[in-house]
Amino acid sequence: MNTYKLTLGYDGTDFRGWQRQPEERTVQGDIEEAVFRITGERIAVHGAGRTDSGVHARSQVASFRGSLKIGHEDLARALNAVLDDDVRIFSVEPEDDGFHARKSARSKIYEYRIIQAPIIHPFDFRFALHWPYRLDLRAMRAGASLFARVGDFSAFSANRELVPVRKVVGSEIREKGDEIVYVIEAEGFLRYMVRTIVGTLLEIGKGKFPLEKVEEAFARKERSLAGPTAPAKGLCLSHVFY
Amino acid sequence: MNTYKLTLGYDGTDFRGWQRQPEERTVQGDIEEAVFRITGERIAVHGAGRTDSGVHARSQVASFRGSLKIGHEDLARALNAVLDDDVRIFSVEPEDDGFHARKSARSKIYEYRIIQAPIIHPFDFRFALHWPYRLDLRAMRAGASLFARVGDFSAFSANRELVPVRKVVGSEIREKGDEIVYVIEAEGFLRYMVRTIVGTLLEIGKGKFPLEKVEEAFARKERSLAGPTAPAKGLCLSHVFY
Repeated sequence: MNTYKLTLGYDGTDFRGWQRQPEERTVQGDIEEAVFRITGERIAVHGAGRTDSGVHARSQVASFRGSLKIGHEDLARALNAVLDDDVRIFSVEPEDDGFHARKSARSKIYEYRIIQAPIIHPFDFRFALHWPYRLDLRAMRAGASLFARVGDFSAFSANRELVPVRKVVGSEIREKGDEIVYVIEAEGFLRYMVRTIVGTLLEIGKGKFPLEKVEEAFARKERSLAGPTAPAKGLCLSHVFY
Repeated sequence: MNTYKLTLGYDGTDFRGWQRQPEERTVQGDIEEAVFRITGERIAVHGAGRTDSGVHARSQVASFRGSLKIGHEDLARALNAVLDDDVRIFSVEPEDDGFHARKSARSKIYEYRIIQAPIIHPFDFRFALHWPYRLDLRAMRAGASLFARVGDFSAFSANRELVPVRKVVGSEIREKGDEIVYVIEAEGFLRYMVRTIVGTLLEIGKGKFPLEKVEEAFARKERSLAGPTAPAKGLCLSHVFY
């Protein structure tokens, strides 16, 4: 048995997320089906990040184990020939036994794009939230810095999770012209965590959410104390570190 | 009667081009239908460039005449509320009588994107041609410069046209990392002209089309002497000058 590492990207718009689901188009489902069509083998492909419905990936990593006759470059080429254009395999590489895309990941970076221009260009609407109203960027920057911590992120997640303590190593707001990009790096993420943080930062930017409430949400661990979940389309898994 | 000037952009992927056609989704058709839904009036809306099926617009201009009760900003807002996300009206402005988006245009710029990376990212595939093979950029630059002229472009057009003489004021190749962008500015364009020029430049880049053949095609005015028509998806109307 060999271990394969795939690096890939996708436009999440037309996928019901990463994770395989019966009757739904998912990235994992499409890749596993493509592997089956090429090799005749049913193999489980594990993603570093189980992105939700509508979330994109600039650079996602996946892995699987198998004994395939096809070479790595040929497999990448064959996968791209079988897959639709909205998902692309950038490389297939051999990895050490024991490598697992999710479990071996040291950290992941997600980015969330917010476009502030009065009108969002048709080239961008799939990949960003359109928010053409005033935002207090200084408050948002201060808010973002509060999430760079080792802490219990229960209030910033949709589900009650078994291990709600996460280590966020970077959390910041960047500006590029009419665009705001929130960038977060963590060892692991809870479900809806980035989108709930972004929803909270937007409330902070609107002046509706005092910074102290972030500390209160962390302390009391109640989802209802955080802001709303921001839409999926602005979110993108941008890099996985090993 | 007042004259209205619209500035707009669209992702051409899901349109059968600019020009209204029965039973087909076109940009002109969608905008005219939106104007009708808002004002109750059937008004012909003229575009500066009649982009073909699958061709995009970063910034297109359109105009129409009418006596509408709705203000300019309200009309822009109402149009965007009615139109799908893949076409956006950036502004609606009053213009002098006699202004016509196409006839009054001094020149237009089209851009054609060619991505040379081994794999095209899913974020880009709608908006660029993927050509991951070697291209002789020096020859392509020399080739591009041959199209900056006042000349009979019959060989570089799909149809026999009544006025095949056009004035191209700029024609050049630009590089941005893994990407080649062909930029052309002209007072007017023939049907498929930019795509035929790009198809010819790609043949030049592959070393299959000597530069002398460009002069021959201009002199003999035969379509068969030029290169193939490049795919629509890489082409974008980027600006209209008045």
